[in-house]
Amino acid sequence: MSTETPPLVLTMGEPAGIGGELSLKAWQARKDGSAPFFTIDDPERLTDLARKLNPDILIDAIDHPSEAAAVFANALPVLPLGTSVQATAGKPNPATAGPVQDSIRRAVDLVREGEAAAVITNPIQKETMYAAGFAFPGHTEFLASLVDDRTVPVMMLASPTLRVVPVTIHVSLRKALDILTTEAIIEAARVTHRELAGSFGIARPRLAVAGLNPHAGEGGAMGDEEAQLIAPAVEVLRADGIDVAGPLSPDTMFTTMARDTYDAAICMYHDQALIPIKTIGFEDAVNVTLGLPFVRTSPDHGTALDLAGTGRADPASLLAAMDVAAEMAAQRRRHAVAA
Amino acid sequence: MSTETPPLVLTMGEPAGIGGELSLKAWQARKDGSAPFFTIDDPERLTDLARKLNPDILIDAIDHPSEAAAVFANALPVLPLGTSVQATAGKPNPATAGPVQDSIRRAVDLVREGEAAAVITNPIQKETMYAAGFAFPGHTEFLASLVDDRTVPVMMLASPTLRVVPVTIHVSLRKALDILTTEAIIEAARVTHRELAGSFGIARPRLAVAGLNPHAGEGGAMGDEEAQLIAPAVEVLRADGIDVAGPLSPDTMFTTMARDTYDAAICMYHDQALIPIKTIGFEDAVNVTLGLPFVRTSPDHGTALDLAGTGRADPASLLAAMDVAAEMAAQRRRHAVAA
Repeated sequence: MSTETPPLVLTMGEPAGIGGELSLKAWQARKDGSAPFFTIDDPERLTDLARKLNPDILIDAIDHPSEAAAVFANALPVLPLGTSVQATAGKPNPATAGPVQDSIRRAVDLVREGEAAAVITNPIQKETMYAAGFAFPGHTEFLASLVDDRTVPVMMLASPTLRVVPVTIHVSLRKALDILTTEAIIEAARVTHRELAGSFGIARPRLAVAGLNPHAGEGGAMGDEEAQLIAPAVEVLRADGIDVAGPLSPDTMFTTMARDTYDAAICMYHDQALIPIKTIGFEDAVNVTLGLPFVRTSPDHGTALDLAGTGRADPASLLAAMDVAAEMAAQRRRHAVAA
Repeated sequence: MSTETPPLVLTMGEPAGIGGELSLKAWQARKDGSAPFFTIDDPERLTDLARKLNPDILIDAIDHPSEAAAVFANALPVLPLGTSVQATAGKPNPATAGPVQDSIRRAVDLVREGEAAAVITNPIQKETMYAAGFAFPGHTEFLASLVDDRTVPVMMLASPTLRVVPVTIHVSLRKALDILTTEAIIEAARVTHRELAGSFGIARPRLAVAGLNPHAGEGGAMGDEEAQLIAPAVEVLRADGIDVAGPLSPDTMFTTMARDTYDAAICMYHDQALIPIKTIGFEDAVNVTLGLPFVRTSPDHGTALDLAGTGRADPASLLAAMDVAAEMAAQRRRHAVAA
């Protein structure tokens, strides 16, 4: 790895969604600044999109990530997928599922080889991927599988005033109750704690563990998972030396005052984590995958098929994802140098 | 009922909690304004509390609610419970469960007789009540039982920018999944719709019905309650002529932009409703019981035993509860006159 910071790499995402437009707009917003990035996409597709969106946006195909920095001030650097990607805005087609995965796979290869600093992923359309045989619940699990079979990815949503980590994620609420274990809570909290120190520069991270039931079970009157599953996890974490509070009443732990008392909330299910962070500020939230041997972030929104092709997609969350990724990558480098 | 607006009535609540202090502070905050209230409590207990908190706060025992308005500018009017209530701050005692219930029961009688405009309840300590044989999950169910066996109370949390109605409330999350039915969703939504029109002055109320699972089930990939239970309820409500959207993805329906599109969110479980409203603004949220033949509100916090006796309790939520109650009572009167 050279001493120079390598560029960020951005994946294509669902080509019928807003990903391409976001890539173009993100370049426009960042071309004069730091943290250059390149995308892995079909340059012709992006050139067509740019022509419709804004003829001032230029595309330049590159052969290698090392060319991205030099190109960046004048054009969006695109590492060609090597396949022509045909997509109709708003109409996802399982035929493009291959290139969508290729873009992700190559981005991961490049970041693991040190040719890219961090991966930022554009949103994918899961139903379309499933229809093409994609065997992963989502992006995060696919990324972990590219590392090895034992990597347990941990999803974090991060915004300027709140970080949340759902222990169970893309399963029905009923299944979340069935699969929640003390071990899963401990694992998610440990990974979170390690990354807050290593990738977020927080010297002594403070965790807050949510209860599962109303009022955290109110002493057993409304559920016993707090006593059976969650409190034992908190004890183990405390024995690890981690600064941890919980199980906390889920409805009061996200108030402005409560948020100040911890660096990340460990949540029991998807919406317990995502409702508060999106309620606070939808556009500022960034999806961060913890527990991988590289930095990966993504915007906290979907493919927005209804917006695709209209030119009205907002790159705010993608830009926030890039900022968080660049900062995390820099922290990791400092941490690695210091270690 | 006279043409003059009767006073609001405030219950005692748990005497070992912050209720008494809040009653005193609420009077202090409102003594020069409109909407006088009286409380049903032990005047000696309140006098002792006032002496410690602020000797400028005066107490005056009244014989009848009709005396409250005249007394209000000079002293907090107290309709005596007729029992001496001995309580140690922070130490609830099942021995006071009787007077706690008496205060509520008499407040309900008075509002039903037209002697009070609306009931505002101070928080009660449920565990202590249970220990004394209280057979109701909470305040709301007890209030409904005072009306008749068929009254189904509907809990709403209301703040200046969001109203939420949980269809299932004080049960474990697992039990909430088990007891959620299409009928319960329809019932809660109909009561909400009726009260938004009758008690909140909204001519054509717009409802948003939440999904249960992440991404509202994502087309069945993460749970089928949306298709099996929730969408059928939405169809029935639409056939009623109600302006209703849903089932909506729970994590995106509480963003600032989304909140503008409806007057109340019908939520499937306690924390789906309470997390967003408390995340937005803890002190502004008011608990409103819909579906009763009278107006009842309460502050959106508990007995705060740890704060009791310190003089640091914040009456903001109780004051907000009084404002909402006064406004709802006025709307009901207008509605009744117009009908």
